[in-house]
Amino acid sequence: MKRIKITDEVKGTFKNNWNFCVGTERMGIALQKEYLDTLEFVRKAINFKYIRGHGLLHDDTAIYREYEIGGEIKPFYNFTYIDRIFDSFLERGLKPFVELGFMPSKLASGDQTVFYWKGNVTPPKDYDKWKGLIQALVNHFIDRYGIEEVLQWPFEVWNEPNLDIFWKDADKAEYFKLYRVTAFAIKEIHKGLQVGGPAICGGADHWIEDFLRFCHKETVPVDFVSRHLYSSKQPKLQTHELVYQDLAEPEDMLKELKAVRELINASPFPGLPFHITEYNTSYTPLNPVHDTCLNAAYLARIISEAGDIVDSFSYWTFSDVFEELDVPRAQFHGGFGLVALNNIPKPTYHMFSFFEKMGRYILYRDESMLVTRKSDQTVTITAWNPEMTKGEDFSKDISIELVLQDGEYFIKRNTVNEQYGNPWHAWIQMGRPRFPVKKAVETLREIARPRVDYDKLSCTGNKLLLELTLSKNEVTFLEISRIKEESETYYRLDDSMIPGY
Amino acid sequence: MKRIKITDEVKGTFKNNWNFCVGTERMGIALQKEYLDTLEFVRKAINFKYIRGHGLLHDDTAIYREYEIGGEIKPFYNFTYIDRIFDSFLERGLKPFVELGFMPSKLASGDQTVFYWKGNVTPPKDYDKWKGLIQALVNHFIDRYGIEEVLQWPFEVWNEPNLDIFWKDADKAEYFKLYRVTAFAIKEIHKGLQVGGPAICGGADHWIEDFLRFCHKETVPVDFVSRHLYSSKQPKLQTHELVYQDLAEPEDMLKELKAVRELINASPFPGLPFHITEYNTSYTPLNPVHDTCLNAAYLARIISEAGDIVDSFSYWTFSDVFEELDVPRAQFHGGFGLVALNNIPKPTYHMFSFFEKMGRYILYRDESMLVTRKSDQTVTITAWNPEMTKGEDFSKDISIELVLQDGEYFIKRNTVNEQYGNPWHAWIQMGRPRFPVKKAVETLREIARPRVDYDKLSCTGNKLLLELTLSKNEVTFLEISRIKEESETYYRLDDSMIPGY
Amino acid sequence: MKRIKITDEVKGTFKNNWNFCVGTERMGIALQKEYLDTLEFVRKAINFKYIRGHGLLHDDTAIYREYEIGGEIKPFYNFTYIDRIFDSFLERGLKPFVELGFMPSKLASGDQTVFYWKGNVTPPKDYDKWKGLIQALVNHFIDRYGIEEVLQWPFEVWNEPNLDIFWKDADKAEYFKLYRVTAFAIKEIHKGLQVGGPAICGGADHWIEDFLRFCHKETVPVDFVSRHLYSSKQPKLQTHELVYQDLAEPEDMLKELKAVRELINASPFPGLPFHITEYNTSYTPLNPVHDTCLNAAYLARIISEAGDIVDSFSYWTFSDVFEELDVPRAQFHGGFGLVALNNIPKPTYHMFSFFEKMGRYILYRDESMLVTRKSDQTVTITAWNPEMTKGEDFSKDISIELVLQDGEYFIKRNTVNEQYGNPWHAWIQMGRPRFPVKKAVETLREIARPRVDYDKLSCTGNKLLLELTLSKNEVTFLEISRIKEESETYYRLDDSMIPGY
Amino acid sequence: MKRIKITDEVKGTFKNNWNFCVGTERMGIALQKEYLDTLEFVRKAINFKYIRGHGLLHDDTAIYREYEIGGEIKPFYNFTYIDRIFDSFLERGLKPFVELGFMPSKLASGDQTVFYWKGNVTPPKDYDKWKGLIQALVNHFIDRYGIEEVLQWPFEVWNEPNLDIFWKDADKAEYFKLYRVTAFAIKEIHKGLQVGGPAICGGADHWIEDFLRFCHKETVPVDFVSRHLYSSKQPKLQTHELVYQDLAEPEDMLKELKAVRELINASPFPGLPFHITEYNTSYTPLNPVHDTCLNAAYLARIISEAGDIVDSFSYWTFSDVFEELDVPRAQFHGGFGLVALNNIPKPTYHMFSFFEKMGRYILYRDESMLVTRKSDQTVTITAWNPEMTKGEDFSKDISIELVLQDGEYFIKRNTVNEQYGNPWHAWIQMGRPRFPVKKAVETLREIARPRVDYDKLSCTGNKLLLELTLSKNEVTFLEISRIKEESETYYRLDDSMIPGY
Repeated sequence: MKRIKITDEVKGTFKNNWNFCVGTERMGIALQKEYLDTLEFVRKAINFKYIRGHGLLHDDTAIYREYEIGGEIKPFYNFTYIDRIFDSFLERGLKPFVELGFMPSKLASGDQTVFYWKGNVTPPKDYDKWKGLIQALVNHFIDRYGIEEVLQWPFEVWNEPNLDIFWKDADKAEYFKLYRVTAFAIKEIHKGLQVGGPAICGGADHWIEDFLRFCHKETVPVDFVSRHLYSSKQPKLQTHELVYQDLAEPEDMLKELKAVRELINASPFPGLPFHITEYNTSYTPLNPVHDTCLNAAYLARIISEAGDIVDSFSYWTFSDVFEELDVPRAQFHGGFGLVALNNIPKPTYHMFSFFEKMGRYILYRDESMLVTRKSDQTVTITAWNPEMTKGEDFSKDISIELVLQDGEYFIKRNTVNEQYGNPWHAWIQMGRPRFPVKKAVETLREIARPRVDYDKLSCTGNKLLLELTLSKNEVTFLEISRIKEESETYYRLDDSMIPGY
Repeated sequence: MKRIKITDEVKGTFKNNWNFCVGTERMGIALQKEYLDTLEFVRKAINFKYIRGHGLLHDDTAIYREYEIGGEIKPFYNFTYIDRIFDSFLERGLKPFVELGFMPSKLASGDQTVFYWKGNVTPPKDYDKWKGLIQALVNHFIDRYGIEEVLQWPFEVWNEPNLDIFWKDADKAEYFKLYRVTAFAIKEIHKGLQVGGPAICGGADHWIEDFLRFCHKETVPVDFVSRHLYSSKQPKLQTHELVYQDLAEPEDMLKELKAVRELINASPFPGLPFHITEYNTSYTPLNPVHDTCLNAAYLARIISEAGDIVDSFSYWTFSDVFEELDVPRAQFHGGFGLVALNNIPKPTYHMFSFFEKMGRYILYRDESMLVTRKSDQTVTITAWNPEMTKGEDFSKDISIELVLQDGEYFIKRNTVNEQYGNPWHAWIQMGRPRFPVKKAVETLREIARPRVDYDKLSCTGNKLLLELTLSKNEVTFLEISRIKEESETYYRLDDSMIPGY
Repeated sequence: MKRIKITDEVKGTFKNNWNFCVGTERMGIALQKEYLDTLEFVRKAINFKYIRGHGLLHDDTAIYREYEIGGEIKPFYNFTYIDRIFDSFLERGLKPFVELGFMPSKLASGDQTVFYWKGNVTPPKDYDKWKGLIQALVNHFIDRYGIEEVLQWPFEVWNEPNLDIFWKDADKAEYFKLYRVTAFAIKEIHKGLQVGGPAICGGADHWIEDFLRFCHKETVPVDFVSRHLYSSKQPKLQTHELVYQDLAEPEDMLKELKAVRELINASPFPGLPFHITEYNTSYTPLNPVHDTCLNAAYLARIISEAGDIVDSFSYWTFSDVFEELDVPRAQFHGGFGLVALNNIPKPTYHMFSFFEKMGRYILYRDESMLVTRKSDQTVTITAWNPEMTKGEDFSKDISIELVLQDGEYFIKRNTVNEQYGNPWHAWIQMGRPRFPVKKAVETLREIARPRVDYDKLSCTGNKLLLELTLSKNEVTFLEISRIKEESETYYRLDDSMIPGY
Repeated sequence: MKRIKITDEVKGTFKNNWNFCVGTERMGIALQKEYLDTLEFVRKAINFKYIRGHGLLHDDTAIYREYEIGGEIKPFYNFTYIDRIFDSFLERGLKPFVELGFMPSKLASGDQTVFYWKGNVTPPKDYDKWKGLIQALVNHFIDRYGIEEVLQWPFEVWNEPNLDIFWKDADKAEYFKLYRVTAFAIKEIHKGLQVGGPAICGGADHWIEDFLRFCHKETVPVDFVSRHLYSSKQPKLQTHELVYQDLAEPEDMLKELKAVRELINASPFPGLPFHITEYNTSYTPLNPVHDTCLNAAYLARIISEAGDIVDSFSYWTFSDVFEELDVPRAQFHGGFGLVALNNIPKPTYHMFSFFEKMGRYILYRDESMLVTRKSDQTVTITAWNPEMTKGEDFSKDISIELVLQDGEYFIKRNTVNEQYGNPWHAWIQMGRPRFPVKKAVETLREIARPRVDYDKLSCTGNKLLLELTLSKNEVTFLEISRIKEESETYYRLDDSMIPGY
């Protein structure tokens, strides 16, 4: 039994850097109805402010074409789709965190591609035309949405250029060239527009050092540093539809962030904004861990603490409407999404929605619990119990003593664990139907809701005692609200006279 | 431990007479948005086909007025509101079960009224004008909706004329006169239109005998008999906002219905359709029993069995948007509704929704359980455990052996009891807030959902064994579906490689 | 031919005092679905900020009741309905302009009532209980909506106390007593809450002088003066469903407002905010003029100019869902509404929607036209041609010369006149169906749209010439937007090659 | 002046073969939100029953994949997308008219493709695997939607195999092989499933003769013949974004259909159902004619008459959400759609919606007019005035004498011509903005509505005289409904007392 005493003193602020941004499959897929339905579903529960994904310049947005006009090859910028996509985001209350990539095939210097959807990852064959494209794009955004709006959009140059699958030969010098041309192209339009990079994956932080040194030395504008973060290890088994991996300890993710933060602070740009533009447990959309409670329980600590280290961290991704490794082959398939196909929320979705209901004022925080007070005096608790060891004997008892005003309190508890709020588990029991019929989808949606319990407790001597048991990989949320008892306003009320009560 | 063995032999048909009709507060209130929102909410879960309420001719529908036109008093029939109301019903898939009453004040012979909203309960001062009104009304319905539609609407003459609060002096001869004029007025328009009565409350079944004898003797048309049914006893305590009553045993309701059915069969009109146009536990909208689990558990048997006796029985009423004894004074106040104010479903709503999911083929039925098979072979069970005795030691263990094809089965269970799917109980814990703020309403809605559990069970030797525990006043629903196992289609699937699983 | 030259110089600001507030039938009716649908419909086109109506304290909101509790008569404040109503307003973006009245019957000193719905117009029988009610109400609003919200709600004491139909004996001293008690009751709760009166009808402005003198002399708080304004004369003919009246000239309304404004400025409270809390042509909801184009063309000048004189003026009312003189007896019946029954917009609705699209910067204004520039440089014109004389020969030709940048301009014109955007006229041709079937309602909705025309004009030498003809009682709206010609970006475009073009 | 006398005698039945089916861009695009929004928009006005498009088996539906499983290459059928797509159709009231094609790349014998989206047009490399795919697909449909549903879906084998761009080498023998394998594969599952071909384009009707002879000779099942129909001639000018063509006379289309119908009747399968699974004026999605009034006026005769010849004819296509020749580059771009991008209806959409409102009973029909009576006795007229000659002097005056019961009639007229209901023309005037901002889109939507006029006419001596003028390329719709005059029910009604009326 873990015993915790919590006073009413505020220990800090719970920053909302965790819901600043969320990841998405490529821009072209944002035309789809299920994608947009899921985006609305997510926004109702979690107040993400920005959205970031690949493929803005990919052929399927049609943004860049070339035609022979009077004997000359001329670029044509087609904004039909990208307008529809950005309109959709803004109408749903999300701003774009603009990633500039990949290469339109007409502009590409080679034909190396990445993903099922064949994003071209080679440098531009003509940097003037690239500059022309970037400026046409930014000017179009300003014409359509107004400069005040566009000034709020970060522009990030490319994605993971330190990996040769995303950038030909992982050529650092070429990336710096791309960055320089792009950054100046943007700043030429308006100094206040924000541009950054290098959007690398983990394990290559010398790129960040080199990048900042380069920007400083060559006085290339840089408004933020970006990087990714995944905690999965090398695959243990990998097939065309499944990847299994072990995970590092949750705190390793925090350590990694701190190390980079220090590295930036030691650069010529100390204090430069630092965005984690992708993170998750596993980096593959075929790892079943994404569908589990463990994923939620494991990442809860990151949500709780990482906002103190970085300016934002963007969960990769909000939805299983995702095609990087081909169209999903089953209802659950290890996708990144907070929400599975057919709009079925996963445990990690609920974990995010719990944090959304937390207050600004931290009363207590440790590695498996956050306790806050909201401005209306409600106390909220999110607690989690991740356990990567096999077996079932890992439930945890916690006793919490809260300092509160004397009186009666209403406690509502939402629970997500192996049995509740866990549609993946139910789906396994159903026989893993790849393409469930409507009735099965409805059953899964019903099962996907967290369990709800409630209680009424007394606080005397300014102490309220809560006793919780968290099962293995559970994430639980409690809301503790003071009761204003109105029973005495009912004349001659007597529940004992109700039959059977 | 109760042990039940159920073969796969069909024992009978589960008739849907129980969802033929539902009761409503007076017509005039059907203009309200919350009323209509609740009606849609109810229709999504329960497939009621007709709706019946008082007040069609009440002053607030404005249907009957008189004006001096050129020195003469002339009637004016105003259909502005009734068109809007009936349009609303039909657009939501419900047909009117038309109750003809109360008396427009311009047509009334006296000023005696009933209810907060002052329905006039006196006979017409001029039966010709009454006939004129009825014919204007029916002709208008036919003009607007077509004769094919209106032929499907039963017309019931008045409400509970055997009580002097609803019909001046409970004057039987006067009622028969009203009935005769009305029935002939309607049949003059079209022989196929359906008319019936006498819409009496319980405990006065000689009215039915007299009524049928009267119709026979005087060859007055009658297409159905109607009557009400409440099982509550005399109030133990009654204030301006609370009434406490004991209830008869559930089976007493069934006995009462059978007795009347036999009485009709012994009349000159054996086999005449017999509609219970109102029923519930208590007949007062201030009795907290309506908000309880007991209400659901108590009435489940009626839903299960009464369809074998009567042609329909109409729960009084679908919503707490109700004003007979003044505007509701609190979120929960003992109202009749399946749904409380602010669209919060009560346990009885869930019980109805469980029966909605039952199949046509009865495999087993006793006083506390119904087991059916659906056309898609799913087996569904609704079980209930009503207990009017005080105390908590009334949980019930049941062991059910089902004859099924060998294989794996997915079992989904929905539970409503004191703790789950019971917002009234949570509201008490919250301090009985009369006018809850939005956040409290959202919490109550969340709590109002039944608990959902699921499991996977094997059937071997054609036997599937289910073990259930029903807590006191619980109503539970189980769905047993054969699993088509697809796991083997996933190449090298191995859940043991998922961290923590 | 009227000729107007308009330079690009800004002559003033077009204030939006005209859409500050709109009138509504009593609070109790705001529970209805059609009412709320119409409110949303109106809000999409016209950005009203406040809504004001009678009956907040009327019996049908159930706000005040009395019960015997333990031998004593105690008040009970029931907020079930008023919460639902105010929630509905706020959810639709409207704040209440709170009118305090009429008298709950339990609190009334007499039984004199007004309207079909019987609003009690007598003083409180007990001013302490009245104060208790007012304070309970305001405190409840603050509890539910927060003090920041409620500080923005004006509280107006009673309605037209200078008429004996609205206030027993039109007793001025009694009104001042009511005002004093109410104002102090409110200010006791929070000094910043706004209270005002005397909400009189026109033709009794000595009440305003007396009222302000009284407030000054007795140091009673007053935050605004309110008054009503109708321009109709004595009825020429009046039946139970029709009233015909002549109207004063439109400018008489402006003169009347100026006179009162001066009177306030000459009082001990110069510059006190002055709200016209009701205005229209006729003060009766049975005058067909409300359904006509004339009503729109007549009031256009008031919308154009009155905002320079008064702080707000509230059109009485947004919808024909209205019951003061009984439930409407026909689709069109002379009701006050901007929108007729079945959500069919009237000409005056369109006139309001035209002004909604006007800009802030006045380029030109006369008695029959307003020309503005919007912040996006679009020039918008609303013009009107009211004519109360019989006959058809009143069309008006106008030639407008606008100073603009040289280039091409796209002109869109919306027209409302006898033939277009005028469903009342079509309904007469249809035979005045009192209760139209759905198909007829759809036809009327289709016909109710303004006619849309467009053109392309060149501006050379900084002059753009527009020629308009306004038919009798027409209101027309023009939008003049600069064209950015993109035709040259289409390679080898040649419309002459399209068959038949 | 054309003069027409129309008696009340019924001359025939107006068949709804014209709205049996509509064409669509490939299946994969049906995942998009704008596509589905447009589909709903179209379905509200036009009651299409089936929908047909290419690409069911194209790689982007992911329906066919191959994986190495344990050393063997095995097919995998992925129904994730196709389920979502077909669910969407059925939820919106449309059934699939299933076109089987193109070739999944894993199954293709070559790499020849068609369209921007690269549909593979080569025969299967392995006919057993093709049979496996077809049977897996059909069985999946039956599992998911039930056999009763799927029995109603026609299965059409491939698209335009007579063109080498759609079928390698336009190899007829190979097509017959494909057809045979496919037809038997389907009939093996259920004899009642409907299969047909050869889905050829125009100008190659010997294919139909050969096809039917082949089926007869080799006793291959065939349930229907299908073919396409376009009336445009060779391009006069063709660029990457524009194609100009002349059109044949409208009656040529009818002649062509009759010829094929006779050819089928002379085959071994006389009377076999004959479906035109695609038709339009031009066969290219870059021809501006599709956006014009002429397109509507030109095709009206086909809608009016072709249903007497063929069992269905399917307009190609309902929406400009279309990618065959790359993503659309402008708001209007000559696309096939009834509806342009951003949900803006074109004149042809309105023409279809007019025919939707026609009755079953033909009173009169000629080459430019159809007059019908509906079951509610309303008379409806659609008239059109196509003119492919340049210039403006082609308006047409028509005088129509209708035999009707004496009385008053309400006439509603909807007009689409160069000025009204013609957003393409307005867009040209706006400067052809390729990517219009929201405000411009709203203006275009407003302008896209047909003009609405109405009148009241008297019929005396059983004659009602209508005089119409149709401008060049106008399509007009009239609805003539008998008036039931209720004016006399308004006591002392006198419009002359209304000011200004």
